[in-house]
Amino acid sequence: MASMPTVTDVALAAGVSRQTVSNVMNSPGIVRADTRERVQAAIAQLGYRPHASARRLRTRRSSTIGIRLDPMIDGISGSVLDRFLHALTEQADKQGLRVLLFTATSPEDEITQLQRLNDGADVDGFVLTSTFAGDPRTKWLIENGISFVTFGRPWGTNDMNDPQHLWVDVDGWAGLHEATRAAQDGGARRIGYIGWPSPSGTGEDRRRGWRDAMLERGDVTEDDLALLEVVCEDGVAQGTAAMQELRRTAGTLDAVLCASDSLALGAMIANPERVPVTGYDNTPVAAAIGLSSVDQSVDEVAAGVLELLTGEFSGHVQGAPESDEPRHRMVKPRLVVREFAAIPMDVPGRATA
Amino acid sequence: MASMPTVTDVALAAGVSRQTVSNVMNSPGIVRADTRERVQAAIAQLGYRPHASARRLRTRRSSTIGIRLDPMIDGISGSVLDRFLHALTEQADKQGLRVLLFTATSPEDEITQLQRLNDGADVDGFVLTSTFAGDPRTKWLIENGISFVTFGRPWGTNDMNDPQHLWVDVDGWAGLHEATRAAQDGGARRIGYIGWPSPSGTGEDRRRGWRDAMLERGDVTEDDLALLEVVCEDGVAQGTAAMQELRRTAGTLDAVLCASDSLALGAMIANPERVPVTGYDNTPVAAAIGLSSVDQSVDEVAAGVLELLTGEFSGHVQGAPESDEPRHRMVKPRLVVREFAAIPMDVPGRATA
Repeated sequence: MASMPTVTDVALAAGVSRQTVSNVMNSPGIVRADTRERVQAAIAQLGYRPHASARRLRTRRSSTIGIRLDPMIDGISGSVLDRFLHALTEQADKQGLRVLLFTATSPEDEITQLQRLNDGADVDGFVLTSTFAGDPRTKWLIENGISFVTFGRPWGTNDMNDPQHLWVDVDGWAGLHEATRAAQDGGARRIGYIGWPSPSGTGEDRRRGWRDAMLERGDVTEDDLALLEVVCEDGVAQGTAAMQELRRTAGTLDAVLCASDSLALGAMIANPERVPVTGYDNTPVAAAIGLSSVDQSVDEVAAGVLELLTGEFSGHVQGAPESDEPRHRMVKPRLVVREFAAIPMDVPGRATA
Repeated sequence: MASMPTVTDVALAAGVSRQTVSNVMNSPGIVRADTRERVQAAIAQLGYRPHASARRLRTRRSSTIGIRLDPMIDGISGSVLDRFLHALTEQADKQGLRVLLFTATSPEDEITQLQRLNDGADVDGFVLTSTFAGDPRTKWLIENGISFVTFGRPWGTNDMNDPQHLWVDVDGWAGLHEATRAAQDGGARRIGYIGWPSPSGTGEDRRRGWRDAMLERGDVTEDDLALLEVVCEDGVAQGTAAMQELRRTAGTLDAVLCASDSLALGAMIANPERVPVTGYDNTPVAAAIGLSSVDQSVDEVAAGVLELLTGEFSGHVQGAPESDEPRHRMVKPRLVVREFAAIPMDVPGRATA
């Protein structure tokens, strides 16, 4: 796209202003004949195409990806989707693709938006986020033969390898497994977990990473594991309450892992013994206060999404027999270990009222 | 836009599949004559326009706003632009406008992108952020007669009322003035300020709000004010260092105001006397840890930007004599007061090494 001649190129070549070029194209009657001929010669010589819409009409290609932007959530962890959007936009730009935003109030409303943008040929394909079991959006896209890739695996039973559903996801199991192993290698035996209530595919995936690593090491029994786990909704205040409960029920506690940075920040507030706490999402908050956290590697996710989507654009026929190309990418997250010191430093003790 | 007939409407009316409608439009030879006639009748009856690009070619309108998405900054305060993008996208959607993202590595590169998107008629106008004195982007847009509104005032001398530069900004002076007054009303007399080095239009604006309120009240002399101010780059570590310096130089310190939440979070870390600290931007971090902060009211900013931009679309001729309509909006920020307790609660004292 960048190398296509522009109005400015035509203006420079013809030695006229951009406005004059525009006049030649839209109101040729008001331009002197010799000027008009000079501009038309420049247009022909440079191969200038006056309008992207005309180009699109021929190719039925908009070079545009549609993605829903969620309403702003006033939380800490929601920013991971903003970070993904930044990564996607930057990488798409390098491939001459643009990102078009839209909003939707529900999965059903989102389908209406997808349909509108697809019918208008405004986009070549979609990136979906926040997938869930029985997601009607992906079902609709597959039925209508529209190109898409999801950030998030299909969460149903036995659909991970559905050739019609292209997806990229982060291996939350591996993230929590690694975080648990790191704590164990540092000498921790009784490692608590603060996670989300069912049903949450993402939450269950992370929880299993912790459980499996704990059972593999064999430091604690299954019964002990139940005492080392607290379930709550996401949030800082919830994390504080969960940490207080864990300190009451768990007995000795060598480390605590959390399903999100919000929970981890909350846990640190009720942590007089300074038990090491690890969060999930590696948000700016975690970096700011010195909290260890599992990083989702959104750059890798964005790269995978674009690779699958452009592969789709460049020839795959929806519904055709599947090729040998893998139809999904599982990205391994990265544990970021930080000094557990920033907040409490220099702050005097104060009992809770 | 939502009420325009779609391929699905045509398919339903003609009693055929969407694919058949598409075939009639693109490969009519492969469709049976009676089916083709039924589809064509439905297209005519519904007034269906087969392609957004064709519509655009006629109207030269894309119903799209272009905005640059900055590279992700791993800080706390950068998220205010993400919050603005969310607000802009949601409000634009309600008016049938879409938001197209692009990236740029410098103001000069951004001009190249603006030109490319404008030449391609991909967007009707632009929203620019992070304006600065002598900004070449706004100069270029004005010279080329392209519609735009900036989030951020022009920061040059005497250009606040330039009729060719439509802008919306947040009154940082008023934000800091109000925060200073609130501290004074709570009994504080010696109020410190941690701000950014010159030249920063935004920073100077906030700093003056504090200075003016302090001088109006007359609790401290000009000489004292110099001792109550520390200047540093933005960041949590910088805020901690600045707070330590302030505690050495300021003597008694009743409250501290900061130019950002990052600085305020840093200041709280080196705050054993628990002096009340107020930040700026009301980020999720401030909400999470219970930090008072000045909120930029991004919803109001987005509403103002769209109001000015759609006014531009609907008839204003660039370069025409200015109308009586105000060409900018100054949004008043809002002080959010929180309990200064979340972080230190329940954490034992620990001396810095």
